[in-house]
Amino acid sequence: MRLRKKPWITEAIKEYDSIVMMHPGEAVRGKWQEVFGRTAPLYVELGTGKGRFISELAERQPETNFIGIEAQQDVLYFAAKKVAEKGLTNVRLLVFDINNILGIFAPGEVSRFYINFCDPWPKARHAKRRLTHIGFLEKYRSILGSGGELFFKTDNRPLFDFSLEQFTEAKLLQRNITFDLHDPASPGHDGNIMTEYEAKFSALGTTINRAEVIFP
Amino acid sequence: MRLRKKPWITEAIKEYDSIVMMHPGEAVRGKWQEVFGRTAPLYVELGTGKGRFISELAERQPETNFIGIEAQQDVLYFAAKKVAEKGLTNVRLLVFDINNILGIFAPGEVSRFYINFCDPWPKARHAKRRLTHIGFLEKYRSILGSGGELFFKTDNRPLFDFSLEQFTEAKLLQRNITFDLHDPASPGHDGNIMTEYEAKFSALGTTINRAEVIFP
Repeated sequence: MRLRKKPWITEAIKEYDSIVMMHPGEAVRGKWQEVFGRTAPLYVELGTGKGRFISELAERQPETNFIGIEAQQDVLYFAAKKVAEKGLTNVRLLVFDINNILGIFAPGEVSRFYINFCDPWPKARHAKRRLTHIGFLEKYRSILGSGGELFFKTDNRPLFDFSLEQFTEAKLLQRNITFDLHDPASPGHDGNIMTEYEAKFSALGTTINRAEVIFP
Repeated sequence: MRLRKKPWITEAIKEYDSIVMMHPGEAVRGKWQEVFGRTAPLYVELGTGKGRFISELAERQPETNFIGIEAQQDVLYFAAKKVAEKGLTNVRLLVFDINNILGIFAPGEVSRFYINFCDPWPKARHAKRRLTHIGFLEKYRSILGSGGELFFKTDNRPLFDFSLEQFTEAKLLQRNITFDLHDPASPGHDGNIMTEYEAKFSALGTTINRAEVIFP
């Protein structure tokens, strides 16, 4: 959903300029360790929304650097608020178009991507826009390098099946596949951090699919 | 389907005593290279039926030793006939109960299992009988050793989904997942050998699911 920009947010988000980066350019490419001021693995969430997931994960894993990418400034504001309230220094949030990620990450710079409840783009002619389309997977591959990971969850079963086949087409290894993440016996259930969307829809009985992918 | 034994087959199958082994015992365990008279990787098909798959695969891969296991003597007879007609020396067919495979293979003795269109046992209380149930996977694990493989195909989507989750529970790696093996773009499409069952049902428009599993 494309939202009309809220003028007050354009002002208020400036308060978080140590956390939020607006439309970063090539200058940051290959320089993320300098941005964070330390050497640590870098995990990137694609489509961060209001930031419940990344803020909780970054709190649990202080030894990892985190970047959340989100196209919409107005939702990212709420993510920045959460990160600031927790006092986290290991998170940066980017207002940025994911299509252009090759411009801001150098090969091997990222260790893991998270994709949580991305837009399913249900029409076949929009398949290329799905964040698990092989076109995107090839971008992730060049950024991750060998042994890199992608952790993916969605409530949309057709998107999940499509994604498993895309992972196959990209010759990636898959593990910990589950069609019901919230079943206590499922891998990934313990320690699962719910996104805002996940909490809302799983409360209505929607089952959540999840898979981990390894780039060999 | 449990068939009444055909008396003529009990006689006729004796003609293939260089190919067929009836209810082998512990004597063969760890001795398969001696049985074949050579050192070669050993691939085992669980549920060989009338043998179209194993006979064609063994013909294409003369450098591999093959064993087909089937509980029903009467269908295995037709498999033996195919193997004999092709003059293959790299295949043995066992009339044997798969539940007892630990009794006839030593740890590390098998490199790959094939499971093609096994009985889906649709009732939940029969789940343990499915050949991809974790109880069976643990047996395969001890026979395969590290790096061993399981190639699985089925037309039954609920069984396929169940199996992916069992592979997950057993902490196995998965690759080349497809929900439509006969799509020319699918991995495994080129070189796919159809079983009798597969040829019949895919001709009716049934889609075939396939996955490759690696035992780390």
